[in-house]
Amino acid sequence: MEIKVMTDILDSNDQMARTVNKRLSAEGIFVLNLLGSPGCGKTTLLEKTIAALKEEISLAVIEGDLFTSKDAERIERQGVPVIQINTAGGCHLDAGMINSVIDNLDLKALDLIIIENVGNLVCPAEFEIGEDAKATVLSVTEGEDKPLKYPLVFRKSQAVVINKMDLLPYTGFDLDAAVTDIKGINPDARLITASCRKGEGLDEWYRWLNLQVGKKKNRSSEICPTQTP
Amino acid sequence: MEIKVMTDILDSNDQMARTVNKRLSAEGIFVLNLLGSPGCGKTTLLEKTIAALKEEISLAVIEGDLFTSKDAERIERQGVPVIQINTAGGCHLDAGMINSVIDNLDLKALDLIIIENVGNLVCPAEFEIGEDAKATVLSVTEGEDKPLKYPLVFRKSQAVVINKMDLLPYTGFDLDAAVTDIKGINPDARLITASCRKGEGLDEWYRWLNLQVGKKKNRSSEICPTQTP
Repeated sequence: MEIKVMTDILDSNDQMARTVNKRLSAEGIFVLNLLGSPGCGKTTLLEKTIAALKEEISLAVIEGDLFTSKDAERIERQGVPVIQINTAGGCHLDAGMINSVIDNLDLKALDLIIIENVGNLVCPAEFEIGEDAKATVLSVTEGEDKPLKYPLVFRKSQAVVINKMDLLPYTGFDLDAAVTDIKGINPDARLITASCRKGEGLDEWYRWLNLQVGKKKNRSSEICPTQTP
Repeated sequence: MEIKVMTDILDSNDQMARTVNKRLSAEGIFVLNLLGSPGCGKTTLLEKTIAALKEEISLAVIEGDLFTSKDAERIERQGVPVIQINTAGGCHLDAGMINSVIDNLDLKALDLIIIENVGNLVCPAEFEIGEDAKATVLSVTEGEDKPLKYPLVFRKSQAVVINKMDLLPYTGFDLDAAVTDIKGINPDARLITASCRKGEGLDEWYRWLNLQVGKKKNRSSEICPTQTP
């Protein structure tokens, strides 16, 4: 009975996720679902990404948090559109939440929407929210055992940023083991080591992100003429 | 409909939690539910706690993880009984899981059971599992904004360990702000700053834990004679 209901919720969420993705795809917008533990550095990665790319890419951010608008305030200072979703205690964003806020963005003007999910390595991995790709941030202060302990989020991510590399000398983090485990779970994931706080190692991340945005624009321009002849 | 089901699940879980607590209380066992983000240092705190207290307190550990028995293996090396619960992707332990494993422990011989919950600041806070108290570990590498962003887990905790203090100089963590916010959410929580890895600052934690174990023993010895005259 409980499992049945859970299936219903996921089915209905998946349908809504497809609706959201279809709508944003029609505008040629690449949508990234950014995941990771509380405090792994998602918002700092966003701040650096916006500063680096906002001149060449038109982007907006959707912030998911249980409470507060602290992250949205940080993003707003970077001078891009931002929407805060408060889940009021809920452990993940769902597609319906994204659907209900995207009309507040100027979709025609956007190339990229990054959605920062609730800080949680478990539940957000189970709910599609209309994204084209997931990226997970893992900080070295969390320990190298996390990929094997939370495999789903790593399996579903097209990119993994191993963050806080500046703190590596002060931790017992085994980088080789973490890389081996992530590659074992998801051989195709783009693996990037970086210090978001220091702004080090992020060029590869920017290149990866730009490539995804460019591909989406291409697909969109190929599709649109046949849809609206 | 969905909310109704959630209420049913929580009600039924709360009943089971009371059953588990009653049973362990009858044996005079203090049960601690240990919470925190992935990689905040829960298992390291457990290792240090076992090494420091196992001569004077008879304790056992229940480990909750989505997958793997990595944490249980670490605890087993400390020479105390340990049970691993794998939730197979589930984001929290529930009382039924605890109920189904406690018969594997020699309850008559125990003073303390510490249950390390799934690494997650959200969902585990919502599910009682038969504990007498919750304690939350927050590492300075997670950022001082976490208490306001995840208030429930801090509100429900009788003790909060601010961990990885050895990394404080390398982070932007505002300790005063974190302490102020935690006290604002939960003025009664015992607040302990420590480095579990270095073994620093933990004496206060050991004293707090010993006091809870002692009180439980007292209550138990007061209750038992009248129950079995």
